[in-house]
Amino acid sequence: MTQGEAKAPAIILARPQMGENIGAAARVMRNFGLTDMRIVSPRDGWPNKKADALAAGAVDVLETARVSDDFASAVSDLTLVFATTARSREMVKPVMTPREAMARAKTETDRAGRAGVLFGAEATGLLNEELAAADILLTIPVDPGFSSLNLAQAVAVTAYEWRAGDAAPEDFSAAPLPATKQELMALMDHLEAELERKGFFFPDHKAESMKRNLRAGLTRGNWTHQDVQTLRGAIKALTGKRGG
Amino acid sequence: MTQGEAKAPAIILARPQMGENIGAAARVMRNFGLTDMRIVSPRDGWPNKKADALAAGAVDVLETARVSDDFASAVSDLTLVFATTARSREMVKPVMTPREAMARAKTETDRAGRAGVLFGAEATGLLNEELAAADILLTIPVDPGFSSLNLAQAVAVTAYEWRAGDAAPEDFSAAPLPATKQELMALMDHLEAELERKGFFFPDHKAESMKRNLRAGLTRGNWTHQDVQTLRGAIKALTGKRGG
Repeated sequence: MTQGEAKAPAIILARPQMGENIGAAARVMRNFGLTDMRIVSPRDGWPNKKADALAAGAVDVLETARVSDDFASAVSDLTLVFATTARSREMVKPVMTPREAMARAKTETDRAGRAGVLFGAEATGLLNEELAAADILLTIPVDPGFSSLNLAQAVAVTAYEWRAGDAAPEDFSAAPLPATKQELMALMDHLEAELERKGFFFPDHKAESMKRNLRAGLTRGNWTHQDVQTLRGAIKALTGKRGG
Repeated sequence: MTQGEAKAPAIILARPQMGENIGAAARVMRNFGLTDMRIVSPRDGWPNKKADALAAGAVDVLETARVSDDFASAVSDLTLVFATTARSREMVKPVMTPREAMARAKTETDRAGRAGVLFGAEATGLLNEELAAADILLTIPVDPGFSSLNLAQAVAVTAYEWRAGDAAPEDFSAAPLPATKQELMALMDHLEAELERKGFFFPDHKAESMKRNLRAGLTRGNWTHQDVQTLRGAIKALTGKRGG
């Protein structure tokens, strides 16, 4: 377990009904580096074969999950608890979006605290006594006209926000650089000379703006060295001058 | 359909395998105000009962989905296409996180363009020819050690980012204000006077710091007018002075 995983928030599922949702939640937790799942009073008991099936490779999250019938013990070691809810229910608590909440969770773990996010049962959400135990309400910005978010999808969005500030993975940063401007200008010169030869820039008084537009368009291609080589080959092929 | 929905990006599922994933994707699209789904060559044909079952109330998204075997026609009206991929595959294209991509999609729709996000088949992802048709690669910041994200979860994270910048829904902003400082100070005065009477602030040379700490602690409660009233009632009850 890396330090990042150790610090990531706990996910607490209160009275979840469908094993499929528990498994899908475990899988998406692992996708975003969360490993600490706690389950309070799962409807269909524990372990749950449907949860295992949907967890795909993340059965370790289920195997290490703390399962109990005691809500208080599920949050006892936490210093900061978020409760997800679609309605305010007139609770007088700070309200945060997932983005704000995960930023707040990071400051909590940075000072050696421990954060957790509570999710209620599929049909009914959190009980008022569970909401009362939370420091902050977390509300996902769904369309008010269609606000019933699947439990595992709610976990997905929250877990995603834990890592959403991260940059694209490293292997993407190895993408080749664009060609140098010298290479690009040589391509343009080449194309322009060939077009000139074919009488493309006609009538004369429009030639200058036609050339300018052509160069502007070609610049937008953001081509690599290899692209420029390929395009020069293509121009040669079109003009029938092999190896020229 | 509101203007917001009309502008939201299209979601294009290329060769999806499981109807459950198509249905779950439709549901979470509607959660975040997306309604334009396009499906290219669904493995199990169309319509799909498992998709309908998982879509919950979002069957309208499935009913209006454009389904065809022609990838090109699925993207033909778009001006900006994102392709989701976990690996760069040495494609020379800009790479964005979901957050960056949805911000870019907004600028595209603001200038009357039309954006769409491509998702590949569950097991295999996008084909190279599909990736080649995209302007920008979209990569979700998953743990490299567990990067296999469920298709509907990938759609969830992307759709969520379309609305993630939104504030908490309006009904949350009706949360009561904290009590005024005057009310809070009157409560502190009341409590302090009663504690004084009981000899709580002992020894004398620590009394000042004890009072300061007590007031600091009570200030952190961020109580409402009603909370303060309740607490004053509680103090009265504890000191046995009814109606005092």
